[in-house]
Amino acid sequence: MNESEKIPIPSLRRLSAYLRQLEVLSASEVTHVSSRQLANYSKVGDATIRRDLTLFGKFGQRGVGYEVDDLISTLRVILGTQRRWGVVLVGAGALGRALMRYSGFDQRGFKIIAAFDNDPKKIGTNLGDIPIHSLDELESVIDFTAARIAILTTPSQHAQEMATRLTAAGIEGILDFATPSLEVPPESYVTYVDITAHLEELTFQVSGNHP
Amino acid sequence: MNESEKIPIPSLRRLSAYLRQLEVLSASEVTHVSSRQLANYSKVGDATIRRDLTLFGKFGQRGVGYEVDDLISTLRVILGTQRRWGVVLVGAGALGRALMRYSGFDQRGFKIIAAFDNDPKKIGTNLGDIPIHSLDELESVIDFTAARIAILTTPSQHAQEMATRLTAAGIEGILDFATPSLEVPPESYVTYVDITAHLEELTFQVSGNHP
Repeated sequence: MNESEKIPIPSLRRLSAYLRQLEVLSASEVTHVSSRQLANYSKVGDATIRRDLTLFGKFGQRGVGYEVDDLISTLRVILGTQRRWGVVLVGAGALGRALMRYSGFDQRGFKIIAAFDNDPKKIGTNLGDIPIHSLDELESVIDFTAARIAILTTPSQHAQEMATRLTAAGIEGILDFATPSLEVPPESYVTYVDITAHLEELTFQVSGNHP
Repeated sequence: MNESEKIPIPSLRRLSAYLRQLEVLSASEVTHVSSRQLANYSKVGDATIRRDLTLFGKFGQRGVGYEVDDLISTLRVILGTQRRWGVVLVGAGALGRALMRYSGFDQRGFKIIAAFDNDPKKIGTNLGDIPIHSLDELESVIDFTAARIAILTTPSQHAQEMATRLTAAGIEGILDFATPSLEVPPESYVTYVDITAHLEELTFQVSGNHP
């Protein structure tokens, strides 16, 4: 945690945005990109891009720009996704099941390897190749799979209890769809996906009733 | 767009985060909160909170702090959610259906009023009280409902075509789950929900192999 706290979250999110754009370019067989082009795609200033990448020792060549696949590799190493991550999912409800079916994870190095629910009708079944276990097996499956990342989609009133069990069982990072204020031990990390905040960003822009 | 561009997106996202925390406090019947408490909950500095809120003319009282319900009302006016928004959803696949079932929208002033899909088995059915229409009806339903916000969950290869049709039909804001690089007219606004970026934030923290 200490090292990483040097990188502000907005910079980190921008690195992910650059990576998304570079993946699109690579799929279209573009080999080089200037900071200005990448800035246009990513909707940030090109000075910001150059500053962000210089932070990680990456310099574009004048007149040539950045080599796309090389920059993808570098960003993946920085973000830790040059390796594959097995992820456990807690809560196989509507959102959980949508995430289990989402093909985008696989392309980016993430694989949901196990899901947990308390519904007897779901326990013991599979969705695609993902087994749904009883919540009683949470600790033993995490131990067995050595998973370090979890996705939490339970109802909000169960989220804190689940976060406490997950971190006690060895989970270090939680992607939280359930509630905005999970408490975890200092060596663990939570990021909250606030879909409503994105909608509020739109209504802020659209309504235009701001000062 | 011009007015709103004065407010940087990170500040805007923080306002949503404060609102989430204040809603939790209000539900627990907390009436007052200091900037320091709100900072702790929202994981930002209390100077940041005070600066963000001063931007909108909101000042806490020394020794008393902010009045929770009053601050909630102010933030909703700023974010445009003091009124209710009817939202159309394009793509009633796994993610689309999960969002149609999501109860959190309703609590925060959003209501999915119509969904669109190209699957004949889904067209003409309802999910809960939400009708699923043919994509052929996109323009007429948007016209009839006067919706200004859309959620896009189609496969990525159809996303640009849908975004173009949506904005031509009068949609001003798109919540995009489909692809990171939608082009829309300058008077419209897109925000991309990048779940993988949140996972990368976790792997960055957990792997610790950054400079």
